[in-house]
Amino acid sequence: MRFVTYYHDTDIKLGAQLNNWVLDLRRGQNYLSGSKFVSDGKVLSNALIPEIMTELIDSDSPFMDEAQQTVKFIQEFLPNAVGKLKSKAILIESDQVILKPPVINPGKLICVGMNYPSPGKVKDQQAAYPVLFLKSSSTLTGHQHPILLPRISDEVFCEGELAIVIGKTGKHISIENALSHVAGYTIANDIGARDLEQRTSQWATGKLPDTFCPMGPALVTSDEIPDPNKLTIRTHINGVLVQSGNTSEMIFNVPYLISYISSIAMLFPGDIILTGTPKSINGRPAPIVYLKAGDHISIEIEGIGVLSNQTKREEYLDA
Amino acid sequence: MRFVTYYHDTDIKLGAQLNNWVLDLRRGQNYLSGSKFVSDGKVLSNALIPEIMTELIDSDSPFMDEAQQTVKFIQEFLPNAVGKLKSKAILIESDQVILKPPVINPGKLICVGMNYPSPGKVKDQQAAYPVLFLKSSSTLTGHQHPILLPRISDEVFCEGELAIVIGKTGKHISIENALSHVAGYTIANDIGARDLEQRTSQWATGKLPDTFCPMGPALVTSDEIPDPNKLTIRTHINGVLVQSGNTSEMIFNVPYLISYISSIAMLFPGDIILTGTPKSINGRPAPIVYLKAGDHISIEIEGIGVLSNQTKREEYLDA
Repeated sequence: MRFVTYYHDTDIKLGAQLNNWVLDLRRGQNYLSGSKFVSDGKVLSNALIPEIMTELIDSDSPFMDEAQQTVKFIQEFLPNAVGKLKSKAILIESDQVILKPPVINPGKLICVGMNYPSPGKVKDQQAAYPVLFLKSSSTLTGHQHPILLPRISDEVFCEGELAIVIGKTGKHISIENALSHVAGYTIANDIGARDLEQRTSQWATGKLPDTFCPMGPALVTSDEIPDPNKLTIRTHINGVLVQSGNTSEMIFNVPYLISYISSIAMLFPGDIILTGTPKSINGRPAPIVYLKAGDHISIEIEGIGVLSNQTKREEYLDA
Repeated sequence: MRFVTYYHDTDIKLGAQLNNWVLDLRRGQNYLSGSKFVSDGKVLSNALIPEIMTELIDSDSPFMDEAQQTVKFIQEFLPNAVGKLKSKAILIESDQVILKPPVINPGKLICVGMNYPSPGKVKDQQAAYPVLFLKSSSTLTGHQHPILLPRISDEVFCEGELAIVIGKTGKHISIENALSHVAGYTIANDIGARDLEQRTSQWATGKLPDTFCPMGPALVTSDEIPDPNKLTIRTHINGVLVQSGNTSEMIFNVPYLISYISSIAMLFPGDIILTGTPKSINGRPAPIVYLKAGDHISIEIEGIGVLSNQTKREEYLDA
């Protein structure tokens, strides 16, 4: 299933993507409760569908079961009842909602650098440990939101990445158990500014600007992605292919990364791991393309979807 | 004034430190409303004292004014009414509460590395830009909570630092306006694991372990610290002085850091900047002391207080 966080009617809500519709999970659950159990459906609904994704995906909560039942119920009901569901605002047309990043405020946003081979580089020259760095949750933005090009950089570039969303708390997670800690996957664009990164030894400066982590469109639950290391991943800028690879190329694969990071820090529901970006186009080195205002970037990962954003210049608002 | 986030009676609350007491801000405000305005004090109180520090210190909110009025009222009332205030649980003895970090879930926790001179190094060899890196908010812990030594490191060290807490949103903040964006200051212990830091080019791995950012005890409002670059700062391990300096030695001072960071990312209320650690003891190079289980660390900053924590070995809980 595909869960989204979206903005509609001045509220931030949890929804599920169904074809070209977004299902309002609370209204859908309310409708389900009403028709099955009568009683006070609204109160029940508010209790059973939480406000934020981090609570929905927490494996210790009953919310995900309730959400999945709701989606299945509406799916069965759908073919004969689009008009009715739409009139009750249980279904909203996708283009009527503004998508937010699936997880708005993750506790941790951990990135892995240099996790795909550079074409021509032999494997035993590669690092013994994953290169970890952090992004701030203030960099997050949603599908189709603008990426702001900072006025202090001329070297902004994009990196398409598979993002792991944790659903189950754990520390010192074994490689064998690692995938059971995943709630789902989504797509991230790890934007960086090379000139800012290179100001000092640490990349954080170049990874920190606002809107430098578009994410989405949806969180795809892990049952739909049995092997996260078997997915094609491609990035286009203005329709031109700039990265093309497969998550099978990762130097440190998804179970290893979860296990490794959990040897350092406790992982909690809603924590996100960005798994690095392919450095090639079909086996040849990928060029570095610096972004200019108005560029359209789209990142496609097999089985997950397409994350699209357009760049624009940062506006001049001073404090 | 000194505001704290604390745990008492299974609730996380906002309080103010008054001598050896913690004032429960909601109960205090309730009492103030009741005696001044009668009417429905409880509802008023819940509306006027928020749940979390980030909301209290937001310069766009009315909460800080209300909190300061409450503290002043209780202070005047205090000499003749300790017994009464205690019986109403408006005042709690300090040793009866568990302090949390003043800001529990900051949007950004930005650290500045190498921001004090190494003794003997001449100034023009120093960097053109502050070295920025991020810590995760999952590293935060409060005054007197244990620092867990990870089982995968033998080289854990501590760094006493002045922490800036932002109270007013801003981007591209000028150096002149920078201090007006500060809600207050607190003390941070930027714990690191050298062996983990040195696994890769990026320090994040060594800065990420749980409990690696003790912070507190209190947020001291900026009106009490007219010049944050004029404060002695000293760190002791088991009573032995290991760092001693003054915030006047910072290579990039507090207004500069706020202005610089805001040229990269929007700063929001509750965002925290760790300003780096002195590298000397009274002008001579400070030794690197690796921590062992049971060590007592205390960091004292003039006008702010003392942050104390004890180390212990991480327990063996596997997922």
